[in-house]
Amino acid sequence: MIKNKISPGIYLYPMPIVIIGANVKGKANFMTIAWCSIVEHKPPMISISASKTHYTNIGINKNQTFSVNIPSEDMVELTDYIGLKSGRDIDKSSLFNIFYGELQTAPMIEETPINLECKLVKTIDMNKGHDLFIGEIVQAYANEEYLTNGIPDIKKFFPLVFSINDNNYWKVGEHIGRAWSVGKKYNSK
Amino acid sequence: MIKNKISPGIYLYPMPIVIIGANVKGKANFMTIAWCSIVEHKPPMISISASKTHYTNIGINKNQTFSVNIPSEDMVELTDYIGLKSGRDIDKSSLFNIFYGELQTAPMIEETPINLECKLVKTIDMNKGHDLFIGEIVQAYANEEYLTNGIPDIKKFFPLVFSINDNNYWKVGEHIGRAWSVGKKYNSK
Repeated sequence: MIKNKISPGIYLYPMPIVIIGANVKGKANFMTIAWCSIVEHKPPMISISASKTHYTNIGINKNQTFSVNIPSEDMVELTDYIGLKSGRDIDKSSLFNIFYGELQTAPMIEETPINLECKLVKTIDMNKGHDLFIGEIVQAYANEEYLTNGIPDIKKFFPLVFSINDNNYWKVGEHIGRAWSVGKKYNSK
Repeated sequence: MIKNKISPGIYLYPMPIVIIGANVKGKANFMTIAWCSIVEHKPPMISISASKTHYTNIGINKNQTFSVNIPSEDMVELTDYIGLKSGRDIDKSSLFNIFYGELQTAPMIEETPINLECKLVKTIDMNKGHDLFIGEIVQAYANEEYLTNGIPDIKKFFPLVFSINDNNYWKVGEHIGRAWSVGKKYNSK
């Protein structure tokens, strides 16, 4: 097999799509991002990378809190709209029903199936245009209808699947197998 | 709407599934992870979070290089197998056809559709059990058959979609819409 070089680029597939919430200048604001990952288990921590130009970053830096809200596929238009507009130009606090948790300054979205309330624990200045924020997930919220055995069930809340560079949203498709399980069938050479 | 609290946890959906490569003690080794994100655009950078107990971490720390290999859905058994076994116990270098790029110490997998060759630029000690490695993607590799207009096309290379906590692999499903586009249809209240 001969491998072709392609230009170095941001080739990671797939990505999640989340809406980040923070209070900026006394008002809830939101941004849509795909550069998000779990980074620690105990306590649970999540990273988000966002361009320093984002209006939402101001609130994260000021309050040291943010929220991660996972939208469902039926919210795709509004989710995309959030990414098209800046809080500098429109008031996004009226787009959702908002609630606050124990941190009091991380606005969360009632309409998204899952909400993670996060306390900023570290900011890594990527020095190239992005802030990498690492937050501890101090509380999580989800309605019973989206859970199976107490755990979020993607076949109940339908998160968006994102492909970068071509910029498309997809549904979660067919089940393939269970992790830490299907590999047992593999016969080593 | 009343929101229920659920225990704080690692609730991010969906996640990618990638195979990380590094040379450990002179031999190519691999680990399967889902905690991976793009963190910077120019130059392209990627983060991976891996438990300090992983054998592969030794090689990343020593050589300051690693690879990110994106498997396709037809590799699910082998991908899962990589995650079930440690390089301390089995020799994973024989599981794939391996090639090296310009960094010379980041082993890449011929069989996976996409490979990212990475130079370690920063390690964040999460101090709780995980290393958060940030690498610059210095080169990327993909065969022509997986590309559309020079960009990886998930409808050609079929990456795995992972749901954590319930630990399931899924296919990418139906197309929903285009990003930075479908939001234009949203009519603000």
